[in-house]
Amino acid sequence: MMRMKRVILIVIFAVGTMASAQTKQDVDLIISGGTVVTMDAARAIIHDGSVAVRGDSIIAVGPSSEIEKRYRSPQVIDARGSLVLPGFINGHTHVPMTLFRGLHDDVTLNDWLRKYIFPAEAKNVNAEFVRWGTRLAAAEQIRAGVTTFADMYYFEDAIAEETKAAGMRGVLGETFIDFPAPDNKSEAQMLAYTENFLKRWQGDSLIQAAPAPHSIYTCSKKTLQDAAALARKYHAPILIHVAEMKKEWDDSEKEHGMSPVSYLNSIGVLGPDVVAAHCIYVDADDEKLLAEKRAGCVHNPSSNMMLASGVSPVPDMRATGVAVGLGTDGPAGSNNDLDLMEEIDLASKLAKITKMDPRALNAKDVVEMATIDGARALHMEKEIGSLETGKKADVVLISLDEPNAVPMYDIYSQIAYSLKGSDVETVIIGGRVVMRDRKLLTVDEPAVLEKAREYGESVKKSLQME
Amino acid sequence: MMRMKRVILIVIFAVGTMASAQTKQDVDLIISGGTVVTMDAARAIIHDGSVAVRGDSIIAVGPSSEIEKRYRSPQVIDARGSLVLPGFINGHTHVPMTLFRGLHDDVTLNDWLRKYIFPAEAKNVNAEFVRWGTRLAAAEQIRAGVTTFADMYYFEDAIAEETKAAGMRGVLGETFIDFPAPDNKSEAQMLAYTENFLKRWQGDSLIQAAPAPHSIYTCSKKTLQDAAALARKYHAPILIHVAEMKKEWDDSEKEHGMSPVSYLNSIGVLGPDVVAAHCIYVDADDEKLLAEKRAGCVHNPSSNMMLASGVSPVPDMRATGVAVGLGTDGPAGSNNDLDLMEEIDLASKLAKITKMDPRALNAKDVVEMATIDGARALHMEKEIGSLETGKKADVVLISLDEPNAVPMYDIYSQIAYSLKGSDVETVIIGGRVVMRDRKLLTVDEPAVLEKAREYGESVKKSLQME
Repeated sequence: MMRMKRVILIVIFAVGTMASAQTKQDVDLIISGGTVVTMDAARAIIHDGSVAVRGDSIIAVGPSSEIEKRYRSPQVIDARGSLVLPGFINGHTHVPMTLFRGLHDDVTLNDWLRKYIFPAEAKNVNAEFVRWGTRLAAAEQIRAGVTTFADMYYFEDAIAEETKAAGMRGVLGETFIDFPAPDNKSEAQMLAYTENFLKRWQGDSLIQAAPAPHSIYTCSKKTLQDAAALARKYHAPILIHVAEMKKEWDDSEKEHGMSPVSYLNSIGVLGPDVVAAHCIYVDADDEKLLAEKRAGCVHNPSSNMMLASGVSPVPDMRATGVAVGLGTDGPAGSNNDLDLMEEIDLASKLAKITKMDPRALNAKDVVEMATIDGARALHMEKEIGSLETGKKADVVLISLDEPNAVPMYDIYSQIAYSLKGSDVETVIIGGRVVMRDRKLLTVDEPAVLEKAREYGESVKKSLQME
Repeated sequence: MMRMKRVILIVIFAVGTMASAQTKQDVDLIISGGTVVTMDAARAIIHDGSVAVRGDSIIAVGPSSEIEKRYRSPQVIDARGSLVLPGFINGHTHVPMTLFRGLHDDVTLNDWLRKYIFPAEAKNVNAEFVRWGTRLAAAEQIRAGVTTFADMYYFEDAIAEETKAAGMRGVLGETFIDFPAPDNKSEAQMLAYTENFLKRWQGDSLIQAAPAPHSIYTCSKKTLQDAAALARKYHAPILIHVAEMKKEWDDSEKEHGMSPVSYLNSIGVLGPDVVAAHCIYVDADDEKLLAEKRAGCVHNPSSNMMLASGVSPVPDMRATGVAVGLGTDGPAGSNNDLDLMEEIDLASKLAKITKMDPRALNAKDVVEMATIDGARALHMEKEIGSLETGKKADVVLISLDEPNAVPMYDIYSQIAYSLKGSDVETVIIGGRVVMRDRKLLTVDEPAVLEKAREYGESVKKSLQME
């Protein structure tokens, strides 16, 4: 149908304006007439700009007048009056935990894990559960302009299938942990499952499979090294929680005589393929090490505040050259949503109050963290994170036709402090329109909401709540 | 038209079921079948509950089956699948500053005030400016479920007219400050203007006029006392910034030998009519004094973080018996929006990370701060803040039909951490429906957005930006 329309349009066009038609290249999609916030190296902003897309990639970005001269497309999205940005990157989450959203909040992390989440997971998590949780998370994330997310959970192969079905880009980490998990009951099983998982998704256009050793306090040196070796065999990233808790630092100093970051380095795990979530308890030496080894870090302000974990020294890490992205963390107990625009806002405000300096992280800094620096943190800066020729066509349109969007004195400030996830109107991932004018096109939202409510009831029953 | 419909309905009903019709009372509006979060003294939550409204007040709240038996109405709002709550109370803001939203962020408070905001105000603020800013703020606040706000600005009489026109409830403070303001150029003028303002709005159903001496560091003892005396003459509240900055505390200790709160008490200003915004630099003695004198406090977490002002000891103040509400503060330089649901979320998270204890403020605590405790802080707990017979019918319906709203294990947790301002679907203030299914009924939104953009351009020109 699309093909047919295009052919007809080309024919009409060819008859009408023979000469100019010959000079125009066909593309699959043009996003036309918006304020294009490229996040390229020059941080160029193009007023009345357009983005031309062919297949899953960006062919050209520039002033609308130039793009119109050079390209023609059967599909044009009118972006006038909107901001056009690279899709937001949620660098750390556990998407199936949408189904545990708000299960038991306002308790200590230890109580939450041992009394509520571990029992809830043991009784409820299976492949079907993670499929529905992933679908719900896809709906929620697309609605808030997230186009790529990095996940750590169980049954990650099922998560990958659902992520791809929703048209989202995912860096999906299968968990290694030194106790029987809901999917794999031993390290041998974890290794076998993950190797199959890595093999299966090699070369996929949307999915990057990865091993995810949970942390230094739940994985032995051997588990950490085995997971890293597997990642390196398949050129996959390594997703891991690092220095999230004070106890983790204290125990590491006691057991290994060094910090969590130094310990990971000393056993050969730290490297340019590591994505380290949290990085709260890091000192100046750790920061230097993270920068030298080109490991990426992901800051999760909502989660760190909600669990009272501590505050990551993000301004210092950035100054030291560490790539720092942003994450929501899981939507249960530690947030409780998947709205990355709130993390943009919060990252700036948390840094300001922590440093007692309103200049600690500015609006542009935190928009960078949600886009190009998030891409660097996931080691995907060649593919995503900015609107540039050759990159994947992951694009969000944000409405400026809302009371909270006017007037606009500074674009980055507006994105960071005034615009909301709910202002995202259209989302394109790899050239595919997954939400148009707030209508989801790749997720059956009513079915997902209904199923989520059913899971809510069955989880309550399993825990004998109410 | 409405009257006509009601008559017809009554006639039909009377013919059909003579007996039961005689036992039913007529009301003007029934909100039917929702999950009613009353915020009454017992914090009752009614599943499949209804609220009956006559005139601007609540006639009854209870199970739908009971309300149906006792009342009939020509106007029924179907709340099935939604939460029904008392409207949110924004206890501290400067609504016309919507038109300066994002004018210059990420600078120190001193630079922001002296280099940007004071010059911008001197060049741009007049009665027409505050009218448009108030209309924009009304649109934004209604969209996020705010039904009452407390304001401090200039030309407050014009703000009152626009607040009433938008159907919102306002506690509106005309500023006293010891330098020429955009409206009044001397204390004598401020007193005369404010006395007229207080007289004009006495007994109004929506507007409570008030004097707003800016702070102890911008008002002399005489100005503070004159403003307080005027308030007391007309039984109006006194709105004031208190202990927002470290410098304010230090200077007060140096000049008066006591804290800002103690100083206000020593000069007879502190009392059960004071609404003290911020209260960051307060010690245990100040907390006791605030509680004893029954002054209300308003916590503004976004603003305090954005301006790096400090963190108010909210859990301690609550424990001491101080009524603490929530505010957005002004939407320029210090937030930058008027979404009170973000403050609910943030108040909890900021308290947790500050105390390094996830139990510091729980979900119910912060929902209280946005509703019944916000009413107490404004000294309006007899009128608003909960859904109870005799109170004003200020009611919001929040959709649970969104990906971020499911599943639901705990209602307060969902409100505090997962639901968004954009999930508010219908808003009723004093029995009048001001937003229905996200359509604003009292503000000409397109006209307001266009005018706000125009003001953006003229403000830029006045400051020779771009």
